Amino acid sequence: MSDVTIHKGLDNVIIDESRLSLVNGTEGKLVYAGYKIEDLAAHALYEEVVYLLWNNRLPNQTELEALRAEIAANAAVPQPVIDALKSMPKDADPMAIMRTAVSMLAHYDPDSETNTPEANRRKAVRLNGQAVTLAAAWPRIRKGLEPVAPRADYNLAENFIYMLRDVAPPEQTAVDAVNAYMVLLTEHGMNASTFATRVTVSTGSDMHSAIVSGISTLKGPAHGGANTEAMKMFLEIGDPANTEKWFVDNIKSGKRRIMGIGHRVYKALDPRAAVLRDRAEALAKGSGNEKWFRIADDLATLARADQYFIERTLYPNVDYFSAIVLYTLDLDVDMFTPLFAMSRMAGWTAHIMEQASNNRLMRPDVLYTGAVDQPYVPLAERG
Amino acid sequence: MSDVTIHKGLDNVIIDESRLSLVNGTEGKLVYAGYKIEDLAAHALYEEVVYLLWNNRLPNQTELEALRAEIAANAAVPQPVIDALKSMPKDADPMAIMRTAVSMLAHYDPDSETNTPEANRRKAVRLNGQAVTLAAAWPRIRKGLEPVAPRADYNLAENFIYMLRDVAPPEQTAVDAVNAYMVLLTEHGMNASTFATRVTVSTGSDMHSAIVSGISTLKGPAHGGANTEAMKMFLEIGDPANTEKWFVDNIKSGKRRIMGIGHRVYKALDPRAAVLRDRAEALAKGSGNEKWFRIADDLATLARADQYFIERTLYPNVDYFSAIVLYTLDLDVDMFTPLFAMSRMAGWTAHIMEQASNNRLMRPDVLYTGAVDQPYVPLAERG
Repeated sequence: MSDVTIHKGLDNVIIDESRLSLVNGTEGKLVYAGYKIEDLAAHALYEEVVYLLWNNRLPNQTELEALRAEIAANAAVPQPVIDALKSMPKDADPMAIMRTAVSMLAHYDPDSETNTPEANRRKAVRLNGQAVTLAAAWPRIRKGLEPVAPRADYNLAENFIYMLRDVAPPEQTAVDAVNAYMVLLTEHGMNASTFATRVTVSTGSDMHSAIVSGISTLKGPAHGGANTEAMKMFLEIGDPANTEKWFVDNIKSGKRRIMGIGHRVYKALDPRAAVLRDRAEALAKGSGNEKWFRIADDLATLARADQYFIERTLYPNVDYFSAIVLYTLDLDVDMFTPLFAMSRMAGWTAHIMEQASNNRLMRPDVLYTGAVDQPYVPLAERG
Repeated sequence: MSDVTIHKGLDNVIIDESRLSLVNGTEGKLVYAGYKIEDLAAHALYEEVVYLLWNNRLPNQTELEALRAEIAANAAVPQPVIDALKSMPKDADPMAIMRTAVSMLAHYDPDSETNTPEANRRKAVRLNGQAVTLAAAWPRIRKGLEPVAPRADYNLAENFIYMLRDVAPPEQTAVDAVNAYMVLLTEHGMNASTFATRVTVSTGSDMHSAIVSGISTLKGPAHGGANTEAMKMFLEIGDPANTEKWFVDNIKSGKRRIMGIGHRVYKALDPRAAVLRDRAEALAKGSGNEKWFRIADDLATLARADQYFIERTLYPNVDYFSAIVLYTLDLDVDMFTPLFAMSRMAGWTAHIMEQASNNRLMRPDVLYTGAVDQPYVPLAERG
């Protein structure tokens, strides 16, 4: 007899080996290809992490500059895609727009239907840059502003702030915050969106298709959508004076959950949340507006002292404090998830290449609970 | 210590219960919500199967007519999506075009960001019709022809042939073949594309996103792309007189595999292949051109008698003879996979609704094989 254990949610089901990242949820530890997330967030350029994931080692200065330049030179979004974005409803969900735009990029990519390792690397270079350009373009386009083209002499964090604000050179504090955010969000084991990219490419499908699956999956509020949901909650609280009452009325009462607290894998503090908390605090102090950080930090403190959260080992996850960091950049709240997507592009593309290099079609099973051998009564004889 | 079994490809891993279909690979049996595929393929309208999957029972005549009319009335593709398709490169991959087009449909769907059961049902109705309209529109648009709008008095198979050829009423032989094809391809357990739709919706993402993941995943040559690959192989053989030599040179030599023979689950004849073989034979005889059916059937006979295929229980799958059926419709070979997608829409939407009704985020794991605790050497000090 076969095993009829049902692995709903696939908890702890190991689907493959991977050299890309270690997520140790018990110790609250995250490692990208050998390096602790704390070291990378403190010191590394996003492109340095891209190089690390794709090559399994850190680059030297020459190698890093070559990759930075290659990505920047390929970051432009073809004009037909920009034109299509201009024709789309301005109130469309930004993740839905990103899904459409990345799908369209394939139609103008000379390698879109070629799945060799060399073609995949070229597509990965383009997609990492183009995702940043798209994430900066849509908030402008929907406000009726002309999008700004990427500059070949900037890195991705610089280009993002430059293209978003159309000011050169881009403000360094904002660039540093975006770079740190991107490094922290680059890669995270077999999360649902990364898993979706691997399922898609396992049929021999192409990289653009796999990335579109990843964006489609990240979009959900239980995954990448959580940063937007967390910020909406902070905005609803509105003032640090309201935090405790809001906690009692909504959380202690059992009516709602705190968005951005709790994680499937981490049963200790998410190490990214610790870095982002400090980053959010510094940004808040620097900006002279500590209100949103205050609300978030106080709410986390209330939760940390609460028996319900203690028993269930619920800690702030990466989305919780990243909402505060992104809000400080004057970014529209519904653009937070596209920023997650552009940052995760390096992880997704690395997983797609890893899956393609040693592939087996993903074809699980379900336990059928319906009827069998029902007699087919002709339509005219049905009551 | 935790279980470190690696379930690469997720073979036999049961991810959930499902009432939608039973795929018994040992016996070569396929059941949709209680009914044998052979009965449904012989008698049922596609909309009847849609009703069955969504409601877990067959409709009576009034209920069937109501669903047919509702789908037909909602099958139009919004003009901005048609306009966008007209602007796209004519040589783009048709599955990539379908991926983009379905993603765009969300921007014009009033329910796109609402995930209640009622909104999901309305979206499912629209998507089942719109997918057929898109599959008929693209082969016209890329040839410079104006697409044809769906008619409210037709069923989906009628509308497909009508919209493809712009002739009313549509030819009945072609309509019957398309309807039977659609019924056979509607649903098939936890295949990779259906799995992808469930992974996507498990994060709380929306139905359009999930369908886009499904299309992205179906696109691969090891899944929906196989019907196109099979037909390319028959075209390469070119004449029944070449079949045996081609088999010896390419297959017996071990150089290549027969596209459309072999299946992850079926270790007996795929029951859909049996139905499609007879359907292909009848269509070939009726059309006066038996050449392609002859090549396919002779090649299958050679394989069936071959020790390699016998030992590995390799039989023709659904893609093998469906290629012949679709070719008889004068359909472009690269449009076969979009036809698979439009047919699978009912299964995908049913699985999305089933997953959403009792959801758990899909979050498997990987075994990390890389280094840990590498010292981070500053960039300037790297060799």
